[in-house]
Amino acid sequence: MNIIAYGAHAGDQPLEPMRITRRAPGVHDVQIEIAYCGVCHSDLHQVRSEWAGTLYPCVPGHEIVGRVSAVGAQVSGFKPGDLVGIGCIVDSCKHCEECDAGLENYCDHRVDTYNSPTSDAPGYTLGGYSQQIVVHERYVLRIRHPEAQLATVAPLLCAGITTYSPLRHWKVGPGHKVGVVGIGGLGHMGIKLAHAMGARVVALTTSESKREAALALGANEVVVSRNADEMAGHAGSFDFILDTVAAPHDLDPFFKLLKRDGTMTLVGAPATPHPSPQVFSLIMKRRSLAGSLTGGIPETQEMLDFCADRGIVADIELIRAEEINTAYERMLKGDVKYRFVIDNASLAA
Amino acid sequence: MNIIAYGAHAGDQPLEPMRITRRAPGVHDVQIEIAYCGVCHSDLHQVRSEWAGTLYPCVPGHEIVGRVSAVGAQVSGFKPGDLVGIGCIVDSCKHCEECDAGLENYCDHRVDTYNSPTSDAPGYTLGGYSQQIVVHERYVLRIRHPEAQLATVAPLLCAGITTYSPLRHWKVGPGHKVGVVGIGGLGHMGIKLAHAMGARVVALTTSESKREAALALGANEVVVSRNADEMAGHAGSFDFILDTVAAPHDLDPFFKLLKRDGTMTLVGAPATPHPSPQVFSLIMKRRSLAGSLTGGIPETQEMLDFCADRGIVADIELIRAEEINTAYERMLKGDVKYRFVIDNASLAA
Repeated sequence: MNIIAYGAHAGDQPLEPMRITRRAPGVHDVQIEIAYCGVCHSDLHQVRSEWAGTLYPCVPGHEIVGRVSAVGAQVSGFKPGDLVGIGCIVDSCKHCEECDAGLENYCDHRVDTYNSPTSDAPGYTLGGYSQQIVVHERYVLRIRHPEAQLATVAPLLCAGITTYSPLRHWKVGPGHKVGVVGIGGLGHMGIKLAHAMGARVVALTTSESKREAALALGANEVVVSRNADEMAGHAGSFDFILDTVAAPHDLDPFFKLLKRDGTMTLVGAPATPHPSPQVFSLIMKRRSLAGSLTGGIPETQEMLDFCADRGIVADIELIRAEEINTAYERMLKGDVKYRFVIDNASLAA
Repeated sequence: MNIIAYGAHAGDQPLEPMRITRRAPGVHDVQIEIAYCGVCHSDLHQVRSEWAGTLYPCVPGHEIVGRVSAVGAQVSGFKPGDLVGIGCIVDSCKHCEECDAGLENYCDHRVDTYNSPTSDAPGYTLGGYSQQIVVHERYVLRIRHPEAQLATVAPLLCAGITTYSPLRHWKVGPGHKVGVVGIGGLGHMGIKLAHAMGARVVALTTSESKREAALALGANEVVVSRNADEMAGHAGSFDFILDTVAAPHDLDPFFKLLKRDGTMTLVGAPATPHPSPQVFSLIMKRRSLAGSLTGGIPETQEMLDFCADRGIVADIELIRAEEINTAYERMLKGDVKYRFVIDNASLAA
């Protein structure tokens, strides 16, 4: 299957239209006509070779929603016409401890939606900035939101699950005070989800200008993290902090906000490490610094259903494929509320 | 009460004999004739002003064992002649959430055994390198080991509880593979305690020469952490790692040893931060980096009883007070198996 995609031929080249192929659906495969694809900060890191090992041409995109166009003979859970999503994972070993636990995201042989080894041409995966994708049914998610919301559902497939999974794993709920650091693609979902889970949510931002917007997203309170007095007023009061910032920054001021036994979990992955945290910040209150990577397939389905039941979607700016290079530049400046989503119909234009 | 102690008048001065005073026992106080005091790496950091805020003259020492010599009118739990211990804490607020939970070690108003503000002269606490100490009964521990083992019990009051508490908090037990990084004062207790809790214990050391000694302490296996091949053979296999090293070192090789959801807990407090860990090391397997500070009073009593029931003590080198400066130099070179303990009778000589 020869289709149109948008990708880059090198780390210092802009993205441009290209032709790629997809395999014919195997017996367990689902073929999806992609309607929309969200634009994640990881796409930019990968396509610009800011993380190691980018293969070119590179077609990013792992916040994929669309409609099933064909299914393999053994597929029972999906049929043509179904609204479905694909997130960050398109394959895994299917038999290790992680896969058995539904934590395919932690499988050592996980196949990411782009830039991971595969037997399909060209030898590594190509993502959702494309017209179509073919994926084993295990990694296909069912979408129960109304079709009119489809574009706003796309970011749930990465930004949604990446924030939902740690909030659930660290048991965020009523009675908890939860901080969300950074109000971008991930952070705005973190605020919405933590709020929906019943926690008291404090948005932590470097920017005074985001105060009103964070409250509108569901934050109970906003703290400007550059304001030391404001930060000091919250010392030792947080149960959990979700840090969504993908740029290196000082972690110690946030540790000080945590109670004894509190955890700060990083979901942003900067190209270079954060300044080293003070050991005393951890020791003095038995605090933890953790990381969390997206989520497993069952939990991603749980998140989509949780959001459908509550009408939760992402706040997006819909763009045409040819606007992607400009969108990256705006994303780097934080100039997006809060996620760009590509209208994949524009690929055919 | 005017008594003999050993301390320093400045960070760049050797320790020497000096006279200090102790308060007369109040109604809730226990007065203790100190028999032995262990020598902790923290003593050296503090007395040499490697941590901020050392007050001089400084008398270190928080691994204190001895015999009760007097008790206040309201003290019911102790009587003259009892064998008792004092660890890292001699007071706390007694009414916060932490104190109510028996986690006085995390009380914001915790009074450390030395160098903490107090109303006693000279305005801050003076530690166990001294003939006597007076402490509120809440912070006095009962010792059930035979008196002949008393010197070897002293290090349990810091090295013992500092390793016992995180092993218990992170639920180490049968079926777990546990790493202990560093085979010094803390590490040798970590190996003994994790072994006694039923875990499979792997000692991680930079030094090939410590292999036999670590096995003798109860390690099931020893890995020389400088040997990349040996480390690679254990990748992703540890449930928990206790890092006891008080000098800055690269944490990433140890993260790679942890399973998904594994935790590495730091109990050593270096004067400068460790090199910054890679965020990917945490994110890729939802791993945690934590810290833990000694332990609360109830848990310290539990640890002492656990050790008494199993005949667990520290391996020590008994020294006279005037040997302390030489002992510090040897400690810096790792030349001690595994804890120096001062025979406090030597103070009167």
